[in-house]
Amino acid sequence: MLAALSSQVPGEELVGIVNVGDDLTLHGLRICPDLDTITYTLAGLNNTETGWGLTGETWRVMQELNALGGEAWFSLGDRDLATHLYRTQRLADGASLSEVTVELLAHMGVAIALLPATEDQMATTFTTSEHGTLSFQEYFVRHHHDVAVTAVGFTGAEAATPGPGVLAALAEADRIVISPSNPLISIAPILAIPGIADVLSERRRDVVAVSPLIGGRAIKGPADRLLDEIGHGATAEGVARSYAEIAGTLVIDVVDASWSPAVEAAGMRCLVTETLMDTPERAANLARVVLDG
Amino acid sequence: MLAALSSQVPGEELVGIVNVGDDLTLHGLRICPDLDTITYTLAGLNNTETGWGLTGETWRVMQELNALGGEAWFSLGDRDLATHLYRTQRLADGASLSEVTVELLAHMGVAIALLPATEDQMATTFTTSEHGTLSFQEYFVRHHHDVAVTAVGFTGAEAATPGPGVLAALAEADRIVISPSNPLISIAPILAIPGIADVLSERRRDVVAVSPLIGGRAIKGPADRLLDEIGHGATAEGVARSYAEIAGTLVIDVVDASWSPAVEAAGMRCLVTETLMDTPERAANLARVVLDG
Repeated sequence: MLAALSSQVPGEELVGIVNVGDDLTLHGLRICPDLDTITYTLAGLNNTETGWGLTGETWRVMQELNALGGEAWFSLGDRDLATHLYRTQRLADGASLSEVTVELLAHMGVAIALLPATEDQMATTFTTSEHGTLSFQEYFVRHHHDVAVTAVGFTGAEAATPGPGVLAALAEADRIVISPSNPLISIAPILAIPGIADVLSERRRDVVAVSPLIGGRAIKGPADRLLDEIGHGATAEGVARSYAEIAGTLVIDVVDASWSPAVEAAGMRCLVTETLMDTPERAANLARVVLDG
Repeated sequence: MLAALSSQVPGEELVGIVNVGDDLTLHGLRICPDLDTITYTLAGLNNTETGWGLTGETWRVMQELNALGGEAWFSLGDRDLATHLYRTQRLADGASLSEVTVELLAHMGVAIALLPATEDQMATTFTTSEHGTLSFQEYFVRHHHDVAVTAVGFTGAEAATPGPGVLAALAEADRIVISPSNPLISIAPILAIPGIADVLSERRRDVVAVSPLIGGRAIKGPADRLLDEIGHGATAEGVARSYAEIAGTLVIDVVDASWSPAVEAAGMRCLVTETLMDTPERAANLARVVLDG
């Protein structure tokens, strides 16, 4: 979504507020999957074949770690590892996560600012009847999100404070866009940090959310299943109910146009357009709708 | 030296007590250069071209880290990194350094036991007039040990306790061999851990040290320079004076045979043989001298 917006607005005018609830420490390394995925994507370095990680990636370290009997279930490519080594060392040097994020963006030539939603430790957890409580990566990578979830929690979120610049960015933005991410595990952990949802509520008229569903299905990931299991249902209406208090407008896909009245009934203005960003043209169109609609 | 000894004695009967004063945490990873170098060498995986690290090594992560502007002065190969990731994660899991060492040796098929001299944190430091106080790796890698040293210290050694099995191994061994390592920075940090030098003194008759000098020169590393700068001189006599209190016998090279009376005068029995282990035959010969002499 940020890449699409940058086709309409100079990158310097865009600020991304990024979920850190998926972050983990593995092998001693601080790994921030959402910050990294967005950074790599904006730098044009994302691996379009796998849908995650870096292009031109190699796996020497993981192969060796596997041979040693190490924990290789969370695949870290050699290029990707350099990011984690860099971040971990800089944090050990006393740099903040925000500062490290700025450095990585600069090194990768990205003009868009990314702000960690918080610099405090927080962790998204999944309650399951089958496997007990799972960390984000256990749920997502180890179990391929193929397990029934009864609840999602955000450990540490209540005590967390918004990262540097987050509240100011939300207060000052002409428009606030909620990306077509998973409402329950990518957006909700940001909203769980005290202060952020309040600003959004105050600025509700300028907040535009994009539904992650097309025909009731998520393009990738478990948004549909989770909306069914623990949300308001895997429909445009269910998404509207998730966001009605903090966003004035919901953008839904043309195939879901029939849900428009239900979205309005849930208290949100409803815009209908093509939301699949599978070509630069469609991405630019969605960006225009989001910015101007 | 351990490899040479294993040509004469079953690996299961050998125990190596290993310096951890060079250990460092970099990029969040716990790195134990001496444990790793010895493990790799005993596994036949050491890089004979560079003299350090693993054979068949690649450098993808370091190249990328360098491109990110990260701290790439301490080169960690991709294969080598797997060892550090493994160790760091196992330590985070609650395993001890000794346990991790056992695991790595087993994974690499090494029958010889290696014991960290201590599991406590300790660090060898170098006082220099040119660059102030340097860590081991700053001295060794960053400055290529090409700097005058006025003192060596072992931070944390006084409060450290010998690692599990260390004192027992020293008490029970038929013979205790001090490898032809650097007396001041590879052996001294082990001796600085309270209790170890005492056991050696008690067992002095069974302790055989091998001089690291051949014709007053170290085969590699700064042993000669340091013996001149802060030791008893870069001669067999200087080495003897370093070890006289804890070892009854010093093995010196044939080219240093004229120093034999001075070694005896320093209070050590002196054995003269070829000490350069450049062929399996010479290595086996040195091992026999050390074990039987």
